[in-house]
Amino acid sequence: MRAGFDFRVSARDGHARVAELETPSAVIETPTFMPVGTVGSVKGMSMEEVAQTGAGIVLANTYHLWLRPTPEVVRSLGGLHTFTRWPKAMLTDSGGFQVFSLASLRTIDDDGVTFRSHLDGTMLRLTPEESMRIQTLLGADIMMAFDECPPGDADRATVERAMARTTAWAKRCLDSPRGEKQALFGIIQGGVHTDLRRQHIKELCALPFDGFALGGLSVGEPWQEMHKVLDDVAHEMPEDRPRYLMGVGTPRDLIAGSLAGIDMFDCVLPTRNARNGQALTWNGRVNIKQLRNREERGPVDPECDGPCCTTGYSRGYLRHLFQAQEILCGRVLTLHNLYFFGRLMKRLRQAIREGNARSWADSVLDRMRENDEVGPADDA
Amino acid sequence: MRAGFDFRVSARDGHARVAELETPSAVIETPTFMPVGTVGSVKGMSMEEVAQTGAGIVLANTYHLWLRPTPEVVRSLGGLHTFTRWPKAMLTDSGGFQVFSLASLRTIDDDGVTFRSHLDGTMLRLTPEESMRIQTLLGADIMMAFDECPPGDADRATVERAMARTTAWAKRCLDSPRGEKQALFGIIQGGVHTDLRRQHIKELCALPFDGFALGGLSVGEPWQEMHKVLDDVAHEMPEDRPRYLMGVGTPRDLIAGSLAGIDMFDCVLPTRNARNGQALTWNGRVNIKQLRNREERGPVDPECDGPCCTTGYSRGYLRHLFQAQEILCGRVLTLHNLYFFGRLMKRLRQAIREGNARSWADSVLDRMRENDEVGPADDA
Repeated sequence: MRAGFDFRVSARDGHARVAELETPSAVIETPTFMPVGTVGSVKGMSMEEVAQTGAGIVLANTYHLWLRPTPEVVRSLGGLHTFTRWPKAMLTDSGGFQVFSLASLRTIDDDGVTFRSHLDGTMLRLTPEESMRIQTLLGADIMMAFDECPPGDADRATVERAMARTTAWAKRCLDSPRGEKQALFGIIQGGVHTDLRRQHIKELCALPFDGFALGGLSVGEPWQEMHKVLDDVAHEMPEDRPRYLMGVGTPRDLIAGSLAGIDMFDCVLPTRNARNGQALTWNGRVNIKQLRNREERGPVDPECDGPCCTTGYSRGYLRHLFQAQEILCGRVLTLHNLYFFGRLMKRLRQAIREGNARSWADSVLDRMRENDEVGPADDA
Repeated sequence: MRAGFDFRVSARDGHARVAELETPSAVIETPTFMPVGTVGSVKGMSMEEVAQTGAGIVLANTYHLWLRPTPEVVRSLGGLHTFTRWPKAMLTDSGGFQVFSLASLRTIDDDGVTFRSHLDGTMLRLTPEESMRIQTLLGADIMMAFDECPPGDADRATVERAMARTTAWAKRCLDSPRGEKQALFGIIQGGVHTDLRRQHIKELCALPFDGFALGGLSVGEPWQEMHKVLDDVAHEMPEDRPRYLMGVGTPRDLIAGSLAGIDMFDCVLPTRNARNGQALTWNGRVNIKQLRNREERGPVDPECDGPCCTTGYSRGYLRHLFQAQEILCGRVLTLHNLYFFGRLMKRLRQAIREGNARSWADSVLDRMRENDEVGPADDA
């Protein structure tokens, strides 16, 4: 890996592993969950609170920051760490995923993608070189290669074309200049096809990236198919590099991914669901707006030792704040959910160290299913 | 005053005074500014942050809490202090002002007011007795008598009718049961007519209230007229009881009111303006969205020693957050504005103690005017 970076595996249990990922800004224990700070803010949180949840690395979205305030402005304000006041590690995605999911009038060619901004309709063009240029200006510890991410229902031929383009673009990303303190991860495509994933791992992992990610998962396919791909191929990614599963996921997915050998995750689920009144707990999901919470003096999760559940926020008060559309509800539940994700990963690392990750995971997931307060109809 | 309450004047400068207001929950130095927590939350803030701004007393709105979650639910969740997690003093208004300003299809008679809820159109009726019942259930340290508050442009006859009704209702409030640890303040009406204000002070202040408020100001009349009334009559309110100017105001108004002899203020200005991107500082107002802030690395106010200006939030970052409609911008600026109001009142108390309140006030207000970054067209 690049100078200033290191990845040291310290414990294994089946395919699962505990490691220390070192960047110029932080040492992060993996498996780890990265809160998403799309435009340079984990929605509603101060960075002091994000740190309080146990997070060591935060993701920011290149596409959004490119459009506004522009990478030049972020650079002029000291780069992402200073700009956002986040002293630990940061990762930027390549912008590709958002171009494929948010932008309209998208045209892909072998050189890059032309599309309209979702903000004001301006025509823009993103190429591997432009993504590297933007990410260099943003200055995160870890940059992601620019890839083509096909939708979850893409046919095999489309997935194969995306793989070929992703490989060609990966080489162009490696050939582009970047900051001295910035690592670069490659992205593996291949949809839910185990053979294609294996083929792309062979292609991509031959290239001198500092880490590797599985892209193109959790993009609409059934979760069971994603779990199968993870079980099949995650452990076949290089042993000595961090493995990152992009855009995932639920507690169930984080556990399945870690057992399959994944080290890093990111997802808007804990933050977005919090703003919609949903808390994630050791007893499954809590929908704060339910009538049962109206006069409930107890906390969201009596078992949680976090800053929402131990400081007097009653379910009844939070329900009231949600009904009244008060900002504080989303803020407190976001803090709760991120804290819960932090604790979940911490206990998972402990279970891996103790060699009982699988049985620990089964009992945790059983309990979440049994006590879940959200009906199957509300399943997300 | 009621047992558990006390009001001790410790310094005077002209009509201005510094005092300690003691309630069963806190001892508050006056003149003081009370942040507004309309539905039981100072919008965007945790109560830990509210305390950090120097606030000792928070106002909550009876009308809003009556409609939702209902006073019975607040009571069942432990009363306002426990419900909102605010350990210091609380004050509830009577609900009258909101009924007169928010509700529709309002009919006033000598017994009370019938109106439609602004939330769902339900027909409701508020009387002095009902206001006292609701405020007793809410359980704030200080309750306000139910008054009739005419608009700023009401004619003299309307103001006189409102005074008569307010006096009659005041007596009914005093005759109603309330909690043992709850004080009750009377409200003086009279519009901008000095003679009517004097007449109503005589009527109201003969009644055994624990404190007195000036209502019906800052309701649309020019600020110069309000300042004149304050100069004329504030010092004629009882010396040995707290004097509260309701719904006011700007830094200019807080200073003018204090110099005239007022002890307590509340207003949504610092919180609402923050959410609209406006910061209040020793150098006047800052409109964070202005282009001049785009690449500005410095804080909102270099002179401020508060938790927004000393912890690395650049104007450029806050402007970006505002443009991107991120919650964090309003949150940080609210913290800033409340901290600024807390410091302003603290320095004002110091100037009163030192006997130079008037000259201190002139120099502070001059500087705010000279350096204000918001054009007259944006004046609020």
